Amino acid sequence: MSSDIILNATIMGVGMHLGAWRHRSQSPSDYLNLDYYREVAQLAEAGRLHALFLADTLAVSEENYERPNLGAMDPTAVLGALAAVTSRLGLVATASTTFNEPFNLARRIASLDHLSRGRAAWNIVTTFIPDVAANFGKDPLLPHAERYAKAEEFVDTVIALWESWEEGALVGDKASGLFADRNRVHAVNHDGRFFSVRGPSTLPRSPQGRPILYQAGSSEEGRALAARVADVIFTVQNTLSSAIAFRKDIRERAVREGRSPDSIKVLPGLVPVIGGTERESQQRKAELDELAGEAELRKLASRVGIPVRELALDKPLPFDRIKANDKFNASRGFQAAAMQLGASEGLTVREILYRNGGGHPQVVGTPEQVADFIESWHRAGAADGFNLMIDELPSGLRTFVEEVVPLLQQRGTFQRDYRANTLRENLGLGNPDDTVRSQERRSANYA
Amino acid sequence: MSSDIILNATIMGVGMHLGAWRHRSQSPSDYLNLDYYREVAQLAEAGRLHALFLADTLAVSEENYERPNLGAMDPTAVLGALAAVTSRLGLVATASTTFNEPFNLARRIASLDHLSRGRAAWNIVTTFIPDVAANFGKDPLLPHAERYAKAEEFVDTVIALWESWEEGALVGDKASGLFADRNRVHAVNHDGRFFSVRGPSTLPRSPQGRPILYQAGSSEEGRALAARVADVIFTVQNTLSSAIAFRKDIRERAVREGRSPDSIKVLPGLVPVIGGTERESQQRKAELDELAGEAELRKLASRVGIPVRELALDKPLPFDRIKANDKFNASRGFQAAAMQLGASEGLTVREILYRNGGGHPQVVGTPEQVADFIESWHRAGAADGFNLMIDELPSGLRTFVEEVVPLLQQRGTFQRDYRANTLRENLGLGNPDDTVRSQERRSANYA
Repeated sequence: MSSDIILNATIMGVGMHLGAWRHRSQSPSDYLNLDYYREVAQLAEAGRLHALFLADTLAVSEENYERPNLGAMDPTAVLGALAAVTSRLGLVATASTTFNEPFNLARRIASLDHLSRGRAAWNIVTTFIPDVAANFGKDPLLPHAERYAKAEEFVDTVIALWESWEEGALVGDKASGLFADRNRVHAVNHDGRFFSVRGPSTLPRSPQGRPILYQAGSSEEGRALAARVADVIFTVQNTLSSAIAFRKDIRERAVREGRSPDSIKVLPGLVPVIGGTERESQQRKAELDELAGEAELRKLASRVGIPVRELALDKPLPFDRIKANDKFNASRGFQAAAMQLGASEGLTVREILYRNGGGHPQVVGTPEQVADFIESWHRAGAADGFNLMIDELPSGLRTFVEEVVPLLQQRGTFQRDYRANTLRENLGLGNPDDTVRSQERRSANYA
Repeated sequence: MSSDIILNATIMGVGMHLGAWRHRSQSPSDYLNLDYYREVAQLAEAGRLHALFLADTLAVSEENYERPNLGAMDPTAVLGALAAVTSRLGLVATASTTFNEPFNLARRIASLDHLSRGRAAWNIVTTFIPDVAANFGKDPLLPHAERYAKAEEFVDTVIALWESWEEGALVGDKASGLFADRNRVHAVNHDGRFFSVRGPSTLPRSPQGRPILYQAGSSEEGRALAARVADVIFTVQNTLSSAIAFRKDIRERAVREGRSPDSIKVLPGLVPVIGGTERESQQRKAELDELAGEAELRKLASRVGIPVRELALDKPLPFDRIKANDKFNASRGFQAAAMQLGASEGLTVREILYRNGGGHPQVVGTPEQVADFIESWHRAGAADGFNLMIDELPSGLRTFVEEVVPLLQQRGTFQRDYRANTLRENLGLGNPDDTVRSQERRSANYA
């Protein structure tokens, strides 16, 4: 592949690893502090990473009492602050299509795009955590297919709002007093199964034409949504072969949607645990695992959808029990990845736990080994780049930026500087669809 | 009165005056730019103003095509950015109880409180603009009393979420691995007429104990809500006598709610139009009015709730027609203020338009005259301070900070520096209610 590798840094609490808050030297309440987010963001920008990605969860589940909650802080507030202290870094806010209103969310992300001068993205999630539903009423979580039906409609409505002002509709002619050209601002008049939104947006077109869309979710419905509208898909792919097949599938789906296959970027998660030597990296990993204790086991049980007591450390995953659970309503991507890892290499539960609990692929090694992994997946067509799930922040990101990034730059596969000011351009994406054509196509779905 | 005057600066588009965008020398699209907001916020902080207040509207109404929309940008995103570039200034985000979810809003404002280290406030509004309702479904706007019934429940739920983690519940003991003390984090279990929210919040107690509550709305229901829960009430009071009566009423209501009368601060809006001489201030006012054209007339018609054609420039307001409109569902405070101004001084429509359209009181004059007005209302017990509705930004604020603030400081009625780091302390407010007592009292309403 000729294009540069894309790299994002993900913030989950004070690091992806459940032991991170105990292992790091800084305050356990850093995940509430602007100074912490500023340090991480400025590190990512110093390393020329394309974007900072904020995960989100709208509830504090039982396991979250054991560590800084990954979704404790509102992403818009945090990324608004980071817009003021960075200038090139993309800012990706996760937000749920199940527990937001399209009008509010569209305005929030477009505001971030204006404030950051074209660096905002929305990471579309549908939310699979029952604890979240309880914070928004008495109804249980919608079933998977319904969640995605609602997500499709939500996203179309948001895009229509983002495109409701034509380019140039804000005239701003002080002499004549013409502020906006009313004829170039269009109601959305969305009237669908889940939402009714008249519009238009309160905001003119944003600097990127419209903000970037990430989609996180690798189920059939998630892939379909991503192939239709997303600029980036964030996925969990545990093996090179599954990642190659996944990316091929997404690109083919995009083509079937009338898009260029290069208009959608596939970013698997990657957990780098870096040390100056292999031994040092293994030491870091062992320390983190020791501090996480049994939390990793509970996380794996929740991920595959069975009680903790049905997992035995020195046995394989109970595949039959997992498959028999027809009430499973959580992330299918994470469940599939964990099972595939366990099956393909015949791993015990203990071995799966060591391998990041069957979640995102993990490289425990030297900067060279991490750089090699990234390049090999990129070269093989398994990834356009990675969402880096840093083990512990900011230390893991600092090492990545200081040790891995220069290697990739020397090898000519990662940018030495930002190409442009907007995330859209930095990701190598073209302009979004022409306003009118895009609006017409979408509104046809709800006629 | 012994206590210092409280001053907030309000951002509405690029200034309160409808002609501001044409009068100012800067770009008409500044209301989309971080640099603009940064400049205004840093000016306010240089002037030791207590807080910056962001108005909000969740729709673009027809008249908003004529000028920068006051509620175009999401306040959380903007104030998140300003948290990063200020250190003492309070940050007040307006948000509607009709078109938000309590869980999301509570988290958003609490996040801002953490990021700003204790400078966040929520300005509670119920939304009276029908265009907004059309962006959130097919139902018409709730009637006034219903909107406030929903607001009462919304606010109680938000406070319960803010108090759901006891002080100190985040233990963060790395050695033992105890991150949070589960026994000191409480579900909210709110189950009311409008909302069902289990909680707890994803966030520990915020730096101010809980964020500050502003309430904007001076109807019977608005006063009742403010007297029960608000720290600050923002009101439109056109005459000294009405302002004295209003503040007395609010303080008495607070006492009946078992609160200290000093625990709620009454801030009327005030529009200063300042010039070096009286003549210069009148010149500025004339230029702005000329540039606004007929927009002010349409605004007045909408404010009193009758068609524009029923207003004659050189006649009084048609009081009978206005009172006959039993479908009026907009701001009762603004309607009453305009009618009172027209009646008490026998003004024509043209004269009312000159007087800021019957909205907030206006002082067109020298810095001394503006300072005198502020002090006289404060001394008379008409106001604890003012929400400054700056005519044009940033120029009007710069003049206020450079010319009026030093006068007030010399006279010893305005702070020469911030007393503390949190908005709560700078407003002279005590600690919020004790967690458990406060939660019990509120949940009793929904038992």
